[in-house]
Amino acid sequence: MDTWLTSLETPTPQAGYELAILLSRMGVKYTQPSAEVRTKLRATYAENADSLTAASQVIAINFQTVAAANQYWIRNAKAQE
Amino acid sequence: MDTWLTSLETPTPQAGYELAILLSRMGVKYTQPSAEVRTKLRATYAENADSLTAASQVIAINFQTVAAANQYWIRNAKAQE
Amino acid sequence: MDTWLTSLETPTPQAGYELAILLSRMGVKYTQPSAEVRTKLRATYAENADSLTAASQVIAINFQTVAAANQYWIRNAKAQE
Amino acid sequence: MDTWLTSLETPTPQAGYELAILLSRMGVKYTQPSAEVRTKLRATYAENADSLTAASQVIAINFQTVAAANQYWIRNAKAQE
Amino acid sequence: MDTWLTSLETPTPQAGYELAILLSRMGVKYTQPSAEVRTKLRATYAENADSLTAASQVIAINFQTVAAANQYWIRNAKAQE
Amino acid sequence: MDTWLTSLETPTPQAGYELAILLSRMGVKYTQPSAEVRTKLRATYAENADSLTAASQVIAINFQTVAAANQYWIRNAKAQE
Repeated sequence: MDTWLTSLETPTPQAGYELAILLSRMGVKYTQPSAEVRTKLRATYAENADSLTAASQVIAINFQTVAAANQYWIRNAKAQE
Repeated sequence: MDTWLTSLETPTPQAGYELAILLSRMGVKYTQPSAEVRTKLRATYAENADSLTAASQVIAINFQTVAAANQYWIRNAKAQE
Repeated sequence: MDTWLTSLETPTPQAGYELAILLSRMGVKYTQPSAEVRTKLRATYAENADSLTAASQVIAINFQTVAAANQYWIRNAKAQE
Repeated sequence: MDTWLTSLETPTPQAGYELAILLSRMGVKYTQPSAEVRTKLRATYAENADSLTAASQVIAINFQTVAAANQYWIRNAKAQE
Repeated sequence: MDTWLTSLETPTPQAGYELAILLSRMGVKYTQPSAEVRTKLRATYAENADSLTAASQVIAINFQTVAAANQYWIRNAKAQE
Repeated sequence: MDTWLTSLETPTPQAGYELAILLSRMGVKYTQPSAEVRTKLRATYAENADSLTAASQVIAINFQTVAAANQYWIRNAKAQE
């Protein structure tokens, strides 16, 4: 697999959330490398409420990791205390 | 996607819980961008007990992140120790 | 929504566990605001073993947050070390 | 509900694991207070592999909390460093 | 139940992973004490992909606990910093 | 089982993510040692969206552990503060 992750640090929480989405999708990609199959499956699960909740949960778990890596993006505030 | 998350800090635990709800919903939104589809799905899963429990679980995971970012909203108590 | 959460601190672990239950239920309430619907659903899932396990899991996740906020209710022990 | 949880501290990891089991069961008990219903449900889910895995998962989450509260039962080792 | 857990410390990460497996199985054993029933169930779920993923997830959660207890097996590296 | 895990430290976040994948697969392997059965199951679950999401979730949990072990790969940045 090509390089796709060189750092967990992001400039903003939103960029961190989007990195969490990438991490979640890569977990699927490593297990199912075929883009064709993934696209086909996506059409189905994106219309299933429970599948969407499950996807959001994986993002939430990865966001915990990214947020901790970035010290919750409040380093400056801490330095000022 | 427009800017929707600039900080994990909130003034109160309740505002933090509501941010956790937003984070949970954005995980769904990124995966299913169509508001129309999401509204349709919502009507179904909001009447399914297990779907509601699953939704509450994603919120709980995101609330862990938000609460840690806010040092559990007890910074002053710590400073006084 | 009215104010329902002003602090994560509780006097005892049991009160903390009960706060975790409240947090878990509020996740459902925000998603399904109708008390009537929630009561109807409760009758069903309270008799399903897997639904009860799932409910207990959400409580467990929220209890992690509440317990951390209260430093596991062992501050005095730490101070004495 | 009567007092059932006054401390998260336990003398040994095994006692901590058993406290995690208690925490997991109390999550069910608060949601389904009827001992009769719980006993009936137990007969079913205790013979279902996925239900047992789910039960073990809730225990694992609660054990994380109990283990952290007890500093993983290795305080003395730390003090000696 | 006899003594089966006296410490979370292990000499290596792999021994820690194997302890996490033991913790996961004990969660099942406490809920279903009959070895006969567990063996029967094992035959089924060990051939179901989703059941195996669920089993791996419980191990992952317990491994978080064991790894934290062992400071991720990198104490010496820290001491050298 | 032969030695397969001697350290949680990796040079990069991506190598850490790939270690998390290995940890997730080993959880399956310990439960179902037959490579033949695992290969057969893989063909099925790799074409099921919910199974793939579940696999990604286990990876996410293990990645939390690996990332913490590596201090999120930002040790140098910390040393410079």
